[in-house]
Amino acid sequence: MSLSIRNQIPGIVTAVKAGEVMATVKVRLTGGQEITAAITLEAVRELGFAEGSSVRTLIKSTEVSVSTAAVEGLSIRNQIPGTVTDVVIGGAMASVKISVEGGELTAAITKDAVADLQLASGASVVALIKSTEISLATV
Amino acid sequence: MSLSIRNQIPGIVTAVKAGEVMATVKVRLTGGQEITAAITLEAVRELGFAEGSSVRTLIKSTEVSVSTAAVEGLSIRNQIPGTVTDVVIGGAMASVKISVEGGELTAAITKDAVADLQLASGASVVALIKSTEISLATV
Amino acid sequence: MSLSIRNQIPGIVTAVKAGEVMATVKVRLTGGQEITAAITLEAVRELGFAEGSSVRTLIKSTEVSVSTAAVEGLSIRNQIPGTVTDVVIGGAMASVKISVEGGELTAAITKDAVADLQLASGASVVALIKSTEISLATV
Repeated sequence: MSLSIRNQIPGIVTAVKAGEVMATVKVRLTGGQEITAAITLEAVRELGFAEGSSVRTLIKSTEVSVSTAAVEGLSIRNQIPGTVTDVVIGGAMASVKISVEGGELTAAITKDAVADLQLASGASVVALIKSTEISLATV
Repeated sequence: MSLSIRNQIPGIVTAVKAGEVMATVKVRLTGGQEITAAITLEAVRELGFAEGSSVRTLIKSTEVSVSTAAVEGLSIRNQIPGTVTDVVIGGAMASVKISVEGGELTAAITKDAVADLQLASGASVVALIKSTEISLATV
Repeated sequence: MSLSIRNQIPGIVTAVKAGEVMATVKVRLTGGQEITAAITLEAVRELGFAEGSSVRTLIKSTEVSVSTAAVEGLSIRNQIPGTVTDVVIGGAMASVKISVEGGELTAAITKDAVADLQLASGASVVALIKSTEISLATV
């Protein structure tokens, strides 16, 4: 199987909190970061996710935002620090590769954002991902 | 009203499950595929969605991922098989047209993903769409 | 046609920048805020969006994040200040209504985020929306 989803980081489920239709699943990534995924309760049940489950977190590149520093007071649960390793600029969009503890992330952001944040290889950044944008797969 | 949202596939609601804030709505598309949309409960109530409602499913191109085969053990509820009919490559992103039973989907994915998956016209693929990325409209 | 998409704010296109696959469209909302939408170039062409076009910006609630203050050094282009008018807490998710200049936004965020940010009616917040999450409609 090959997926277009660029960002696939393995981890272990540390907690599952079920609502009536949605659930939040906390995952400790191999790099030690803790992330939260908001997925349907149905998916949690069908895939049997529970504390201790080995999973792969999947994040589409267009769902990754980039900040030049950690952000306090933000509803976005997932903030993963890293270092920019590559920037490719297109006509409207840009692709930014970020090396993080335990893996690599690709962020598809606007060309304007790359210019404003002066993103270039070597820059320290924080990748931001809203919980509703994270999918999980069994391994 | 015309929408920039490229993917609009008609269907019939087969089930609605309400939480306190969110609701999941199952829709059978005209091509026979069953998809799940996670939308706000408020939207369900205001638009009166119930079993039997005719709806249009709306999916932004940037929310469609592509796989070369069906994926087991994945939290992404919606997996629609199809055939690539066109690929346009830009500087950072690419647009992939996928013919599916009953319609057509456009996926905006990274240029890198197109290369890795060797996507070209005629390729068999599966379009993947997270439930939280699907909106619904009345018809 | 009625849409499940909760956030629909009218505005006028102020600039269109076309890439090969994607385009960024800047829109001045009726409240005066300037937002950026990253949509496919195909949509821009088919709908004829150009400087001066009247549009409606569409944003799914699950795509709206909330911050307690404006954030510097962030790739997220769209930061709209406002005031919380209502918070509904579910089992896993929460819905937050934010009154902004010229309209209202609904954000579907995790229940945990609401607790961490101590969001309640009257709180000053900033709604954050990634450009790739904004769709446009003709009016």
